[in-house]
Amino acid sequence: MNGKPSSNTAGMPIRCRAAIVRKPGEPLVIEEVIVAPPKSREVRIKIICTSLCHSDVTFWKLEHPPAIFPRILGHEAVGVVESVGEDVHEVVEGDTVIPIFLPDCGECTDCLSNKSNLCSKLPFSVSPYMDRDKTSRFTDMNGETLYHFLFVSSFSEYTVVDIGHVTKIDPQTPPNRACLLSCGVSTGVGAAWKAANVEAGTTVAIFGLGAIGLAVAEGARLCGAKRIIGVDVNQDKFDLGKKFGVTDFINSRDCKDKTVSQVIMEMTGEGADYCFECVGMSSLVQEAYASCRKGWGKTVVLGVDQPGAKLTLSSFEVLHSGKSLTGSLFGGLKPKSDIPILVKRYMDKVTRIWVFRFLSLTSEVKLLLS
Amino acid sequence: MNGKPSSNTAGMPIRCRAAIVRKPGEPLVIEEVIVAPPKSREVRIKIICTSLCHSDVTFWKLEHPPAIFPRILGHEAVGVVESVGEDVHEVVEGDTVIPIFLPDCGECTDCLSNKSNLCSKLPFSVSPYMDRDKTSRFTDMNGETLYHFLFVSSFSEYTVVDIGHVTKIDPQTPPNRACLLSCGVSTGVGAAWKAANVEAGTTVAIFGLGAIGLAVAEGARLCGAKRIIGVDVNQDKFDLGKKFGVTDFINSRDCKDKTVSQVIMEMTGEGADYCFECVGMSSLVQEAYASCRKGWGKTVVLGVDQPGAKLTLSSFEVLHSGKSLTGSLFGGLKPKSDIPILVKRYMDKVTRIWVFRFLSLTSEVKLLLS
Ligand SMILES: [Zn+2]
Ligand SMILES: [Zn+2]
Ligand SMILES: [Zn+2]
Ligand SMILES: [Zn+2]
Repeated sequence: MNGKPSSNTAGMPIRCRAAIVRKPGEPLVIEEVIVAPPKSREVRIKIICTSLCHSDVTFWKLEHPPAIFPRILGHEAVGVVESVGEDVHEVVEGDTVIPIFLPDCGECTDCLSNKSNLCSKLPFSVSPYMDRDKTSRFTDMNGETLYHFLFVSSFSEYTVVDIGHVTKIDPQTPPNRACLLSCGVSTGVGAAWKAANVEAGTTVAIFGLGAIGLAVAEGARLCGAKRIIGVDVNQDKFDLGKKFGVTDFINSRDCKDKTVSQVIMEMTGEGADYCFECVGMSSLVQEAYASCRKGWGKTVVLGVDQPGAKLTLSSFEVLHSGKSLTGSLFGGLKPKSDIPILVKRYMDKVTRIWVFRFLSLTSEVKLLLS
Repeated sequence: MNGKPSSNTAGMPIRCRAAIVRKPGEPLVIEEVIVAPPKSREVRIKIICTSLCHSDVTFWKLEHPPAIFPRILGHEAVGVVESVGEDVHEVVEGDTVIPIFLPDCGECTDCLSNKSNLCSKLPFSVSPYMDRDKTSRFTDMNGETLYHFLFVSSFSEYTVVDIGHVTKIDPQTPPNRACLLSCGVSTGVGAAWKAANVEAGTTVAIFGLGAIGLAVAEGARLCGAKRIIGVDVNQDKFDLGKKFGVTDFINSRDCKDKTVSQVIMEMTGEGADYCFECVGMSSLVQEAYASCRKGWGKTVVLGVDQPGAKLTLSSFEVLHSGKSLTGSLFGGLKPKSDIPILVKRYMDKVTRIWVFRFLSLTSEVKLLLS
């Protein structure tokens, strides 16, 4: 990441290698591709480091729309600006940047408000194209279009990203840490910090200690939570979780005739002040909601459920409990203003070492990487 | 309410008249009853004025538990303290008070917190007894027990109420206004003020312009909402609503092939900042949620649905919209601290005249009062 990219490629197509998925579930193929130069408000980035998120796996396996092939997956990354298109003033060649799936145009009502992180001008979607002009910048050696993924497509040596999806960071940040801020870690830390606004001295329950759940624990610890209860089917997650602030563990396969929420009620007396659902199962959202303390308990939904899934709560409980339910994309973080804060915290050693992202991934990933 | 009650009844049973419901749905019968003196932490109140709330009607008609008969209904009232039991220091004989179904013990974690109005020491329920010792203070002339309702039972010339359910107010408050603060009007005004914390300049949508919905409009107007959209099946509610700040009206029977949320989206461009469901229908909660602005929209559930009713939302929308859903009892108000503020606002003429509560009631009420 210290090597300044050669500017003699600016304005020209770049031939480089990328990992392509041509059919759902088939191993990625490393091929040569052509990456067109950035158009207006676009940035071409030399990818330095990329990690893998569950959404990559989901879209790798998905057989029906919005899946589309051939495609270049990957959306957790860090890189260096190789060249910029017209009307890009925010970054210049050589800047270290994180591409982020969530847009931040900096101009719309949402981007200008401190209450929303859902840009209205470049609305988030799973479009296979560039955000603004709805075309691709990738072609294979036969001239066939390769589709983008989440406006990032980081499984390529070079990629083109809209400036609304690019956040400049401190170039001293270690790349294998920086890339994690592109999605999962930020989502979890942000959920505790921004979406829930966890108060010091409180009790937090986290359903699912995957990468996002562990990042929620880290975020809750940074916010000063006193007690952080992890819930998972895998007992090994407790030791891992302790590194991120988890103080108590519930193995949900080991609750006998009790529900997880009953166990949490017994442990806490009144319930958790904040519950985070990080798995993406409607029944777990119900358990999380039931585990929240009456009067002020907040349930934050982070897990991605199946398309069309419904979330059901008791009308009586919603009315009588004074609890609230919310969801957030990217943990409620605003990419351009909040990510540099997280980077600074890391560089100032306020946060412990980040979870090694791959730890939480399943054997499917090994297949994907084969 | 200016007549100081005769203290010679203190410590003695009082014989007076009450309206009794002996069988579900049958007209109330005015009978003589015996009201026992207040026990420790209880207050006996001479009722000056009582109004009628839908919950009275619901429990009048309800045939199965938690319904119980014979019972003295009524829970919106104002009165004067006739006598107090031991350990009551907060009010004395002659004080003007509002009995409120929601307890406020002043001692528990919830009552001491500004985030909750759900007392832990005297949890809200539909118990037919006094809150602390679980017995009744009412008997009929045959010595049969008459059951309490919502810890108030105001359809009686005298009633006994736990001090946790009593709020002292300015004795100059007109009784026919004061009694309305006991339930519906406070619930609606409080929902805008406390539960949603409506910000100035925002857009509010109210589903159902009954007494509570109109009170929400009044609360939103006081909070400085710029646009207040009322939704109802009855077109006449628009003129009524205008008196309380409603600026736009949607007749939900007149939306043709559009849903109410589609109409609200068209009217507002982006949706309402706050939506209030005041009817008690799961499908309307969904419409309210869909009508909320992405990024920060808040849906507040106030309507009481059928027992066992479920509330269903799309998991995708919860995760991706950044909206939140919450419910509240008594509008999130803390009876002892917030009601005197509402009374002061009324006395200072900050608020317009309250809705005449009976306006919104149905013909069932006429039967009840026959
Ligand atoms: Zn991701
Ligand atoms: Zn924007
Ligand atoms: Zn009521
Ligand atoms: Zn209390």
